[in-house]
Amino acid sequence: MNRQNALKNIRIVLNGAVHPGNIGASARALKTMGLARLYLVAPQRYPDAEAAWRASRATDVLDSAIVCATLDEALAGVAFAVACSARSREIAVPEVSARQAAKEVVAAARAQEAALVFGNETFGLTTEEVNKCRLIATIPAAPDYSSLNLAAAVQVFAYELRMAAISELAGGPPERPRQLASHEEIEGFYEHLERTMVEAGFFDPEHPKKLMPRLRRLFARAQLEKEEVNILRGILRSFRRS
Amino acid sequence: MNRQNALKNIRIVLNGAVHPGNIGASARALKTMGLARLYLVAPQRYPDAEAAWRASRATDVLDSAIVCATLDEALAGVAFAVACSARSREIAVPEVSARQAAKEVVAAARAQEAALVFGNETFGLTTEEVNKCRLIATIPAAPDYSSLNLAAAVQVFAYELRMAAISELAGGPPERPRQLASHEEIEGFYEHLERTMVEAGFFDPEHPKKLMPRLRRLFARAQLEKEEVNILRGILRSFRRS
Repeated sequence: MNRQNALKNIRIVLNGAVHPGNIGASARALKTMGLARLYLVAPQRYPDAEAAWRASRATDVLDSAIVCATLDEALAGVAFAVACSARSREIAVPEVSARQAAKEVVAAARAQEAALVFGNETFGLTTEEVNKCRLIATIPAAPDYSSLNLAAAVQVFAYELRMAAISELAGGPPERPRQLASHEEIEGFYEHLERTMVEAGFFDPEHPKKLMPRLRRLFARAQLEKEEVNILRGILRSFRRS
Repeated sequence: MNRQNALKNIRIVLNGAVHPGNIGASARALKTMGLARLYLVAPQRYPDAEAAWRASRATDVLDSAIVCATLDEALAGVAFAVACSARSREIAVPEVSARQAAKEVVAAARAQEAALVFGNETFGLTTEEVNKCRLIATIPAAPDYSSLNLAAAVQVFAYELRMAAISELAGGPPERPRQLASHEEIEGFYEHLERTMVEAGFFDPEHPKKLMPRLRRLFARAQLEKEEVNILRGILRSFRRS
């Protein structure tokens, strides 16, 4: 476990990749983004000259790839796995964007092993394989042609992991992550705000004029923390008393 | 000029690409992200079977690529060109991240032709070529190996263009861009807020306890609009009167 660099705790798992060129290009994509741990589940051709050629100067990542017989073997010891998928599914696993998934993976990888899992070029991941993961992540692609090349998808996810790691570093020490307010806390604040504005004569519920939706949009953009909700409600209480 | 879809006004220019596989893979990268306009400046091999194979089902984008003899020809009619480069340079053109560049390109492409320019696989862009562009954009890569494959870099930039276009759409119609409050308006709001909290007995300027910095941080994250500042100050006035 490397607590200084979350990227070192992230495995990129290619499940049943068919083309060795994609394996090599994925190794290169990893290395350019500061990732190094490639897992290959039942690759059709590995090692292979085509993979070495496409890896360019990332042959170290390619040569140290860990070959597994099953996805379970590749995920052994992993606490937070994300299924990378081109399409939405009717499935119990929650679905998020690649950008959001990268943030969650990097946050988890501060303290635990994490993994991104990619399916093969033709069939992607089965429902059973997705169900082994916490989240499904998708790249918002064009509706009429959403089929990214496997290594290109690996490059985009690796890039988002690096961007998330950089932004965490720039955003302050990871030991004190932001404590976002819960849904109930946020709703409690909106009720309190509305009530206080009605009492002050600023808001007429008979003629709402989109005031509350506007205020909701403003505070939603701020992504309120627990303590901030407490401060704001303290201010509202003091106004009511004065 | 397509005012509904900025992505239609963006050219992706490959300047002197060597490997036909990268040309084909770039065509695929474009199509998956809703882009369609590929310009090839003096490609070494085009058309080519390898390009067609790597383009997969994006052969329409590949086949309609415009081949030019010079970069100037590819940039004819372009108002906003960005040079995509792996490395920083001592040069007059300002340098930004791929993400920031994508936002600026999509904003410019609402009303004008825009272009991203990529150099060849070995040498990138010359200083003279970069000087034809408004910005240099770089993907924040690992310092010890920053050499993305050309088509992988095209995929990352195309992805960021699509994300920027989606986020513009989600943020409201482009005809009504957000009217952010000015520095003076924001400061006027903070003064008003502080004064009202002092009168209500919530805030003691003798013992400030970081209250104002915390509130500033909260509202800074929301990036207040002019009208929102007016609403918030209206609320503060009503609380004072009640």
